[in-house]
Amino acid sequence: MGYTKDDELAINTIRLLAVDATFKANSGHPGAPMGLAPVAHIMFNKFMNFNPKNPDWLNRDRFVLSNGHACMLHYALLHLFGYKLSMDDLKAFRQIDSITPGHPEAQDTPGIEVTTGPLGQGFSNAVGLAIAQAHTAAEFNKPGFELVNNHTYCFFGDGCAMEGIASEAASTAGHLQLGNLIMVYDDNHISIDGDTKVAFTEDVMKRFEAYGWHTQWVKDGDHDLEGIEKALQIAKDVKDKPSMIKLTTTIGFGSLLQGTGGVHGNALKADDCKQIKKKFGFNPEESFVVPQKVYDMYHAHAADGAANEQDCNKLFEEYGSQHKAEHADLLRRLSGKLPDGWEQKLPTYKPGDKEQASRKLSEAVLEAIHETVPDLIGGSADLTGSNNTRWKNAVDFQPPVLGIGDWGGRYIRYGVREHAMAGIMNGIAAYGTLIPFGGTFLNFVSYASGSVRLSSLSHCRVIYVATHDSIGLGEDGPTHQPIETLAHFRALPNMMVWRPADGNECSAAYYVALTSKSTPSIFALTRQNLPQLENSTLENGIKGGYVSVENEKADITLVSTGSEVCICIEAVKYLKDNHNLTARVVSIPCFEVFDAQSKEYRLKCLPDGIPSLSVEAMSTMGWERYSNEQFGLNRFGASGAYKDVYKKFEFTPEGISKRAVATVNFYKGTKVRSPVNRAFQQLI
Amino acid sequence: MGYTKDDELAINTIRLLAVDATFKANSGHPGAPMGLAPVAHIMFNKFMNFNPKNPDWLNRDRFVLSNGHACMLHYALLHLFGYKLSMDDLKAFRQIDSITPGHPEAQDTPGIEVTTGPLGQGFSNAVGLAIAQAHTAAEFNKPGFELVNNHTYCFFGDGCAMEGIASEAASTAGHLQLGNLIMVYDDNHISIDGDTKVAFTEDVMKRFEAYGWHTQWVKDGDHDLEGIEKALQIAKDVKDKPSMIKLTTTIGFGSLLQGTGGVHGNALKADDCKQIKKKFGFNPEESFVVPQKVYDMYHAHAADGAANEQDCNKLFEEYGSQHKAEHADLLRRLSGKLPDGWEQKLPTYKPGDKEQASRKLSEAVLEAIHETVPDLIGGSADLTGSNNTRWKNAVDFQPPVLGIGDWGGRYIRYGVREHAMAGIMNGIAAYGTLIPFGGTFLNFVSYASGSVRLSSLSHCRVIYVATHDSIGLGEDGPTHQPIETLAHFRALPNMMVWRPADGNECSAAYYVALTSKSTPSIFALTRQNLPQLENSTLENGIKGGYVSVENEKADITLVSTGSEVCICIEAVKYLKDNHNLTARVVSIPCFEVFDAQSKEYRLKCLPDGIPSLSVEAMSTMGWERYSNEQFGLNRFGASGAYKDVYKKFEFTPEGISKRAVATVNFYKGTKVRSPVNRAFQQLI
Ligand SMILES: [Ca+2]
Ligand SMILES: [Ca+2]
Repeated sequence: MGYTKDDELAINTIRLLAVDATFKANSGHPGAPMGLAPVAHIMFNKFMNFNPKNPDWLNRDRFVLSNGHACMLHYALLHLFGYKLSMDDLKAFRQIDSITPGHPEAQDTPGIEVTTGPLGQGFSNAVGLAIAQAHTAAEFNKPGFELVNNHTYCFFGDGCAMEGIASEAASTAGHLQLGNLIMVYDDNHISIDGDTKVAFTEDVMKRFEAYGWHTQWVKDGDHDLEGIEKALQIAKDVKDKPSMIKLTTTIGFGSLLQGTGGVHGNALKADDCKQIKKKFGFNPEESFVVPQKVYDMYHAHAADGAANEQDCNKLFEEYGSQHKAEHADLLRRLSGKLPDGWEQKLPTYKPGDKEQASRKLSEAVLEAIHETVPDLIGGSADLTGSNNTRWKNAVDFQPPVLGIGDWGGRYIRYGVREHAMAGIMNGIAAYGTLIPFGGTFLNFVSYASGSVRLSSLSHCRVIYVATHDSIGLGEDGPTHQPIETLAHFRALPNMMVWRPADGNECSAAYYVALTSKSTPSIFALTRQNLPQLENSTLENGIKGGYVSVENEKADITLVSTGSEVCICIEAVKYLKDNHNLTARVVSIPCFEVFDAQSKEYRLKCLPDGIPSLSVEAMSTMGWERYSNEQFGLNRFGASGAYKDVYKKFEFTPEGISKRAVATVNFYKGTKVRSPVNRAFQQLI
Repeated sequence: MGYTKDDELAINTIRLLAVDATFKANSGHPGAPMGLAPVAHIMFNKFMNFNPKNPDWLNRDRFVLSNGHACMLHYALLHLFGYKLSMDDLKAFRQIDSITPGHPEAQDTPGIEVTTGPLGQGFSNAVGLAIAQAHTAAEFNKPGFELVNNHTYCFFGDGCAMEGIASEAASTAGHLQLGNLIMVYDDNHISIDGDTKVAFTEDVMKRFEAYGWHTQWVKDGDHDLEGIEKALQIAKDVKDKPSMIKLTTTIGFGSLLQGTGGVHGNALKADDCKQIKKKFGFNPEESFVVPQKVYDMYHAHAADGAANEQDCNKLFEEYGSQHKAEHADLLRRLSGKLPDGWEQKLPTYKPGDKEQASRKLSEAVLEAIHETVPDLIGGSADLTGSNNTRWKNAVDFQPPVLGIGDWGGRYIRYGVREHAMAGIMNGIAAYGTLIPFGGTFLNFVSYASGSVRLSSLSHCRVIYVATHDSIGLGEDGPTHQPIETLAHFRALPNMMVWRPADGNECSAAYYVALTSKSTPSIFALTRQNLPQLENSTLENGIKGGYVSVENEKADITLVSTGSEVCICIEAVKYLKDNHNLTARVVSIPCFEVFDAQSKEYRLKCLPDGIPSLSVEAMSTMGWERYSNEQFGLNRFGASGAYKDVYKKFEFTPEGISKRAVATVNFYKGTKVRSPVNRAFQQLI
């Protein structure tokens, strides 16, 4: 308490950096940074613990700017505290190849925890970070060794508050009683359409109370610095509930257009820039000015943070002497590596082993490796028994007071909240000690599209266990049967979409997913049983594609994935018996991984000289890259027993053979070039 | 009031039909129908107004089963009331090609208003149906002629209550004060993971109050028939708020497993079927039994409904004599046809006309046609000024008491709620009198994927105005720049994805979208300006693809869409000047529509003999179907001025030419076959 002119100076410095950077870029969002500068000043200086020289320090407090368009606020703070973000970087705001892009991107900028901007994402990431903290503390803290006790702080605005994903995540956080989570709601009554009264008149505080949150209202977020500090302190003291502080602010505080939509998404006019600098006691002719006093104040707090890290490091060293195994395990986790030899635990299968649904094969992997890979923390969006995501002895991650689990539990009950599940998983992955996986039906991974995209963009090692992956789910019908879904996610950069054909391919999918530190994965898994195939091995699987049935002098290559591979293998016999045609079969469980193999290898799989036909029981889109002709389903499915549905759409040896014959005839006499051959390389 | 044994008999009949149908199918969800049978019996018989002989009667009350897995409840009701749904249809529950699929599908089954099952969708559809009712009443009701005064009723369960889309829609409905909307929340404490206490412990009633809803709680939904009736009556009497009745029920009421997850998604065991029949006074050896008394009761109510329709029809006839224009307009709307000559209003452009962003061109269409096509009702998810979705004199659709619009307003402020916007649009379209459109950035149409899919599956004429359609949006950066998005939605069956290159193509997109009664559309529109092109005409545009630049004896065809077409045209000159190569350009603004043209026409556009190169500044996935080689962006974009971003990724005449040269060289000496030629036809 006891705020002085220096605090005001610092707050106005932040505001003006946002004004100057957006003015120079002639683009961006000055309004929210100007409104949020007071709370940011107080929160970062009086509450948050971090060391700008080591943005990776495990026990740092996390900050998430869910209203990511306000990123000039965060960039300004990072600069002032001495993160590796120079004044030149601020001047390059929103310029190509700068580290200060239009919305915060975790990989680009030191000190940015998660990629935000798509509204509601940061909110759910913050819930994930808080879950990861609670779990990591439970696993590693020991009497006398509170290694991990950081808080997660988050700002969000009206936009985030309106997004469904934030509602889902808020309900989850309330249920989980995450006392380590403190959110500030920037209640400025403005969104892009102007006054929020046109669309958003609910009682946000009451809603959060309904979710089980602790709530407070600071009515003058522009001036009441004491009130802000007090609210933050109370929020910090509340240990059994997440906290939300509704902070009423003036968007664009100080601008001639303050309190209007005019300052939301446009730079201030030149005149306005001048008057606000004058108003704040700055030289109206100068830009990007930071008074030394402000640097000094911020650097002093940064130095405190560095000292705190030193203390933590010392504590961790002592911990090492008393808790060797945990010490080594935590170090290993932070390195991103898995325990030596973990892959020995992966189940393998021989041809003829029991038929199983790949969702069961996935369960077998989790059952086999969960002890050896303690980083795994999983769950399901209320489809546990269908997704098979829970190992037998799993303990639920729950507040102990509920009596149905504890903070050390590794199974998360996400409820029917696919989008929040995905956003929370991104947050858990960002914490640094855990590898999250989460289950739903493949069709409903689409509900989570917004977050799935950010898993890819922000390099999160997360796994989507997506069962019921095709018309093979049967009776639930077209509302639940994916058609466009694999094309969608295969088109997403930095996403591995796996559709394993059997047990060894399923183990291969887990192997690659878990060892790829900066790439998320989607596993498309069947409801129905699949046989264990010849030539399917871990070694073949991890190449993303391989020859499943080889035949010298074949007339055609059948290329397939998942549950259709075994039907293609049956079609080989059918084609020989009925049409005297020789076929070979290639399984490509993962395009992204297959594409990374040498051209020579890919040509061995998909050779020149004979035509190829792809077979997959959903949209053919994207298969042209791996085959000359495509058999798929460019329409919606049908409700019925799964075998009836497959028959209706001709995904049978006969149906495949009919199209194989047409393909062979079509290409007869032409020199067939493998689709592996391309005229030039793609930009990736 | 005054419930008798006959009511109990009817309720138990419904329960047993659900038991028998799921038992016969050995699949499906008996539990929720058994719990909801009492409220359904009362609501349909004492409150709802409908005529089973004419499921299309405009002023019928609408019913939406948002927990669509409980569809045996609705099928049973439809059968009992005499809709065209026979006992044999009930017996064919979940069998292939039946009209009783695993989740309700609007096109398949008379009496089903909207397709539900994906959780939360029906909830938002119901909000849309209520909006459409309020608006249609405001437009057509006259003193003495209350043509339209129906209510919308909706059941939803815990799953829907957890989904973000339902939260968004509930907040919207509360803001809009939709007094014509009555929802029943099936509070049965069970979801697929078992007791809801594991994930869902919020105070749902308090949350709905926070949204501005009227709420009531009926604590014994199994037995308290009077209480249910009273609550429904109160809800109906509340005119200025949507109503939510929390109805505590026992899932699987009567089963040995009642109140547990065991009755949620599995048929009852044979023994259990027998005991419950005995308990309810039915013969345990019989199945699919409807006592004549029950038929009589239900048919009597159906007859009342038919009589009501007669009265309404008479009223409408009278209305016709006094309000000729409105009468004709309403009849026309119900036919799905647009006003004669409306297409004359579509703006057209000549080459050399002013450069404009296609989002502005879209605005110009709306400005030009909104008076002639009064069916249009639009909005934006809080991006009005960016999506350009609002014509100048538009009035907001708002409760008049707010003083910022009225029920007759045709502009909807959706707030930052993309998913609910889409679900609401599906509901509006289902009402039958309106054509909804809604704006957001193309990248955030993905947030609405769940509903977009249902636009397609349930044949809704809705338009997604999706601006900022590529890296061309510039500074907002990769978090906002679509890469996978067009591939995703192009892979969706029955969806027209348009990416117009200029004004005439934009008008063509609107023409096809508005005249396609059962297909939704997504318009991908630029932020940046585009020139008006040669050969771009309405006639060409509505073919979905055409030759933009023809050249005899060309070396290569450049195939493109939207903002890249004009760069391809520049590349034609660059190729001639620098490489002495002759290129032609084909614009394919809509794959779905182009695919519907004759093979002859398509081959004229994409001829045999010369190679083709596609150019689109996003994922190349799917372009293999229209080109031999593909230039695109199979990685995320970058934050910067749009021209800098285009240059970085080489979407320039030089960059295109480089790849065109590589393509020509690659195919030199080979007999190039157009990708239009296929070995066999796809299943569609
Ligand atoms: Ca705001
Ligand atoms: Ca339930």
